[in-house]
Amino acid sequence: MQTLVDLNADAGESFGRWTLGADDQLIPLVNSVNIACGWHAGDPGTMHRTLRIARDAGASVGAHPGMPDLAGFGRRAIALSPQEAADACLYQFGALRGIADSFGVPVTHVKPHGALYGLTLRDENVADAVVDALANAAPETNIVLLAGHTAQRIAAKGYPVVREAFADLDYDDSGHIVIEPVPRAKSPQQCTEQAMSVLRGELVSMNGETVPVDADTICVHGDRPNAVEIAETIRSRFDAEGVGTAPMATVLAKRG
Amino acid sequence: MQTLVDLNADAGESFGRWTLGADDQLIPLVNSVNIACGWHAGDPGTMHRTLRIARDAGASVGAHPGMPDLAGFGRRAIALSPQEAADACLYQFGALRGIADSFGVPVTHVKPHGALYGLTLRDENVADAVVDALANAAPETNIVLLAGHTAQRIAAKGYPVVREAFADLDYDDSGHIVIEPVPRAKSPQQCTEQAMSVLRGELVSMNGETVPVDADTICVHGDRPNAVEIAETIRSRFDAEGVGTAPMATVLAKRG
Amino acid sequence: MQTLVDLNADAGESFGRWTLGADDQLIPLVNSVNIACGWHAGDPGTMHRTLRIARDAGASVGAHPGMPDLAGFGRRAIALSPQEAADACLYQFGALRGIADSFGVPVTHVKPHGALYGLTLRDENVADAVVDALANAAPETNIVLLAGHTAQRIAAKGYPVVREAFADLDYDDSGHIVIEPVPRAKSPQQCTEQAMSVLRGELVSMNGETVPVDADTICVHGDRPNAVEIAETIRSRFDAEGVGTAPMATVLAKRG
Amino acid sequence: MQTLVDLNADAGESFGRWTLGADDQLIPLVNSVNIACGWHAGDPGTMHRTLRIARDAGASVGAHPGMPDLAGFGRRAIALSPQEAADACLYQFGALRGIADSFGVPVTHVKPHGALYGLTLRDENVADAVVDALANAAPETNIVLLAGHTAQRIAAKGYPVVREAFADLDYDDSGHIVIEPVPRAKSPQQCTEQAMSVLRGELVSMNGETVPVDADTICVHGDRPNAVEIAETIRSRFDAEGVGTAPMATVLAKRG
Repeated sequence: MQTLVDLNADAGESFGRWTLGADDQLIPLVNSVNIACGWHAGDPGTMHRTLRIARDAGASVGAHPGMPDLAGFGRRAIALSPQEAADACLYQFGALRGIADSFGVPVTHVKPHGALYGLTLRDENVADAVVDALANAAPETNIVLLAGHTAQRIAAKGYPVVREAFADLDYDDSGHIVIEPVPRAKSPQQCTEQAMSVLRGELVSMNGETVPVDADTICVHGDRPNAVEIAETIRSRFDAEGVGTAPMATVLAKRG
Repeated sequence: MQTLVDLNADAGESFGRWTLGADDQLIPLVNSVNIACGWHAGDPGTMHRTLRIARDAGASVGAHPGMPDLAGFGRRAIALSPQEAADACLYQFGALRGIADSFGVPVTHVKPHGALYGLTLRDENVADAVVDALANAAPETNIVLLAGHTAQRIAAKGYPVVREAFADLDYDDSGHIVIEPVPRAKSPQQCTEQAMSVLRGELVSMNGETVPVDADTICVHGDRPNAVEIAETIRSRFDAEGVGTAPMATVLAKRG
Repeated sequence: MQTLVDLNADAGESFGRWTLGADDQLIPLVNSVNIACGWHAGDPGTMHRTLRIARDAGASVGAHPGMPDLAGFGRRAIALSPQEAADACLYQFGALRGIADSFGVPVTHVKPHGALYGLTLRDENVADAVVDALANAAPETNIVLLAGHTAQRIAAKGYPVVREAFADLDYDDSGHIVIEPVPRAKSPQQCTEQAMSVLRGELVSMNGETVPVDADTICVHGDRPNAVEIAETIRSRFDAEGVGTAPMATVLAKRG
Repeated sequence: MQTLVDLNADAGESFGRWTLGADDQLIPLVNSVNIACGWHAGDPGTMHRTLRIARDAGASVGAHPGMPDLAGFGRRAIALSPQEAADACLYQFGALRGIADSFGVPVTHVKPHGALYGLTLRDENVADAVVDALANAAPETNIVLLAGHTAQRIAAKGYPVVREAFADLDYDDSGHIVIEPVPRAKSPQQCTEQAMSVLRGELVSMNGETVPVDADTICVHGDRPNAVEIAETIRSRFDAEGVGTAPMATVLAKRG
């Protein structure tokens, strides 16, 4: 069984007057945090506040770029061209880094959000354009992708890819995640079992099929109502089972 | 008479389907270019294309952050708090730098646009917040402000300020610029006379008053219909009069 | 003492993934509801859901147009021209009516939101442009304005103006409201006392001054955390004191 | 050969500072005009100005609702749900009608734009939701759809459908239009031949196949650089051939 993994959470998904998630409670429970960059959620003030929480908690900071779709929270597919997707990622990554630099906090990774994550996994040209652009602009930046075919293909080209699994999402038989438009509360125990299963290298799909998985990081969604409880339960179980956690860069380095 | 100056232009102010300005003709005529960052104009694709033109022309690249107001082209006053203005500048500066990094082009300066420029000049707290934030995040970045009281106050605090004058705007008797909502074509000869007057250290206001000025850079607005002709005429006259031009960082260094 | 008044609430101020206010509990407690129209808050889906709640509760429906400023929740001043303000109101009023028509629900009034309300009260030209535009486009539509000078001036010109007072906002000595950027919970008893005071024709300012007031409708802000409790407390007190409530059009007609 | 048809144009597709199309020249050349409503293009001020041009020219006015995508000009597919698409159409239709009412100009039809037009034609559930919503909200409003399967299906349900053909777009062998991301100038003669062909009940596809067509209205895109010349050439030819033109409602009534 795998004994070192990164726990990551999507955060900074409030927007202006509207609050979403309990970032001040969730971020201290994870090792890496993916901060929304203003296109699907987040605004410069929210980014600023979330960066401060992450810095104080010692969490590794990443950009969480999304579709240009506040009204749809970046969860509606938009037919971006590869070039548009790449420029969108550089723009949002750069915007977060601009604010992070004022805290002296490095932006260590990029994880596309929602429909942009889906498009990157599904469209080879989009994946290549996004990864090439990031590698040109910030070669030291890790790219977080669903553990599976696309992540493997990109890693094989020599790019620094972090393979991700989800504690709180359902999987289909081919190992793809099933996205809920609006996440509901889920059983922390069930999410914890799924996280433990990932460490054993396999997942159980919605249909009961066993799917192999090899992941460097496990995600908890910050906009799930009981995200804090889920993260706490997973972390307690990891402690009880002797599973260590570390930011994704450390995990990548140790796992080789 | 001053014999070295920077010529700068606002550019990259197209948006999606809509084209504004002749960036490919104007940018090769100036030494520094201020590229819109998506809030008042510009989008990641336009930023990408404008950066390529600037790189190919050898122009020094700066960010041109604006108010969050596409519909108003950033020319309507919005009551941002100092913190909001600072975060807005870091966000937009960072976004441009994210794309610029993929070209290996440094972002050497920041010049607020339109109503954000006006707010920065008018509100001491905004100016301080913006300048502090940029100095923390990117200490080597020059800040372009209207030659005058605010620029002097900020420079006295030790920040790298580039003092700007305008070839194509009217001035009032106290040395403030008069903004047109939509710039119209102007006489290239008249703009050139105004640029020459700046080099002699004085401007003539709309009312015929003489106003002293000390500027490191002279601006031509890219969204003025005959901007290219204006820049050509100024450049020819500079050549004829033996006035040298260089990017603003060089001018700053030489002028001390 | 005045024995008939309208109770109104701002509602429909969620946006996409983000929920704000408890519209399903608040709307049944008021007589008139002002629904956000997508510029400062609200989106077509939220408008749709809010209209259904209002129809089911029998509340009178109005448009609550705001500044083009989702990130600032329409509470930051933006220097719209009179023509821009008028067109903004017609656009948002029309958009709400488009969806309301599919429910067969009439849109009986317009109440500008936040900084647009403030601009309308402060700038005579804006007020005139907004009121003229609405009178041309929908002559039967009531316009809700702060009870005071501007409301009186507009009413004197023959326009159907509903004069508003606030149960949950502080007033200064000249009878202007003091806007909180983000409303906090307030004592329901204190808000109720203020509502009763309005019915007696006077308000007590923050400084303890007595300010005369003559209002047709009293507002409770839907985005105040304890808005429901405040509305319940006011309504109980009205019942106990024999104060009747009715939609604003009815109140206007009865009060002459 | 058909001797009466409507000529329509998309217009009002400027946005804020950015101008697109020559509405003041194009609108007088057509019988019906579809005005952008602020989501893919247009803003309240542009809508206001375009409505005035249409009123002065005596053109019949329709709403041209688009995807929520200014940066993509509404030409990128977005996966709206049927309910989202319906609410989007009601919102935009209503917004235009709000401003049109201040001119006393009726909004007689709705024609979805770009990717929303495509989604409506392709997705039966979207088409039904949009048409039902419009029929509920404004039963007298005509709906413009590509002459073909979807238009026929909707018309068979009793809805007032106007069948459209394009003078300036290519068709594939199954009668679907081929959308250019950015329209370029086209031969006015070729567009005119295509319009004449439509009146004879057939089109020639890109591959030279003959496709039957039965259209009530023929469109010229306002954002094509030589749209005015195309419309003039078509109109001259119609005059020469004795083809009459009239607003779409008139054509519908006469054609039964």
